[in-house]
Amino acid sequence: MSNIVKHAQSVSLSQREHKNGHKAGVLWFTGLSGSGKSTLAMALQKELFDRDLMVTVLDGDNVRYGLNSDLGFEESDRVENLRRVSEVAKLLAESGMIVITSFISPYAKERERVRNIIAPIPFLEVHINASLEMVESRDPKGLYAKARQGEISNFTGLDAPYEIPTHADFTLDTEINSVDECVQKLMTELTKRTFI
Amino acid sequence: MSNIVKHAQSVSLSQREHKNGHKAGVLWFTGLSGSGKSTLAMALQKELFDRDLMVTVLDGDNVRYGLNSDLGFEESDRVENLRRVSEVAKLLAESGMIVITSFISPYAKERERVRNIIAPIPFLEVHINASLEMVESRDPKGLYAKARQGEISNFTGLDAPYEIPTHADFTLDTEINSVDECVQKLMTELTKRTFI
Repeated sequence: MSNIVKHAQSVSLSQREHKNGHKAGVLWFTGLSGSGKSTLAMALQKELFDRDLMVTVLDGDNVRYGLNSDLGFEESDRVENLRRVSEVAKLLAESGMIVITSFISPYAKERERVRNIIAPIPFLEVHINASLEMVESRDPKGLYAKARQGEISNFTGLDAPYEIPTHADFTLDTEINSVDECVQKLMTELTKRTFI
Repeated sequence: MSNIVKHAQSVSLSQREHKNGHKAGVLWFTGLSGSGKSTLAMALQKELFDRDLMVTVLDGDNVRYGLNSDLGFEESDRVENLRRVSEVAKLLAESGMIVITSFISPYAKERERVRNIIAPIPFLEVHINASLEMVESRDPKGLYAKARQGEISNFTGLDAPYEIPTHADFTLDTEINSVDECVQKLMTELTKRTFI
């Protein structure tokens, strides 16, 4: 890497934030499949956009079609998947955006790595919480049923662990609160943290 | 990939473009090392930002520190480097931005692949032209000297080919025009193509 020279940016992040009228940062949604990560990400994006903020969503499933289409679901591929997504989230945030990501990200160690990659960009780990019983009864993609029938292995929550965040910056419980209520809680939190 | 479900976007690209007041797209700068790609990318970014447009730069050297830090300079790694960068440029443009990229991208076949990945997002291939004699005399990073001394192999323009674009959407000649003149030509072209 000794032949690589970094070019100075002609527009700083603080100039972008000043023009956009809000801070840039990454809201990292983590939770079981079916917990509501993508639904909440899309609902929050709409709310922020309607208030004239620059916002975008990076979604696990969507990224798998493009950037990470070469990766499977083995341990090493999942690690690489999150590494790349973290770097892309950082690039998007460095462009002045609030980036909402939606990835199961089951391991505490990996979430910590993500936080370190994205630093010094502001980063909030948001745990989208719902019990296994609840997400399995929702099963919006029919994946839990497939996993129970042995058609999918290493499925988070069943035969692969989900390490519940012990230091999440914010937790939402989608068993208790509706989508609208969760979005309002997020808006309050973002205001409190002076993002918006 | 049969277990992957795409989530509908809650904000469309046309809604973003309407709010931003301009079209999103990718300006792909290609040219020899030292031709002025990054300098022009940074200068154009500043000009567009000052006119209140949403703009960002993806730079070959910068991306090598993050997203593509696992890649070297072998043929297969260069191909993968451009594939990932194309996907990221697309994600940035889908968020409503004008994305200026700065990559040597020496092979016509690879540039065509980039165009196909980024479609249907508007894409302009911009050839930043300067003769080998000129870029070697500039040698801003001292790389041509190193390559001539055998310290770097497979160096584009010396012992690796640069396939001059025959179908570039726009060409700038940095031997003839100053940075300011090139930026003005680009602004005229972007206006003509109704980007801005």
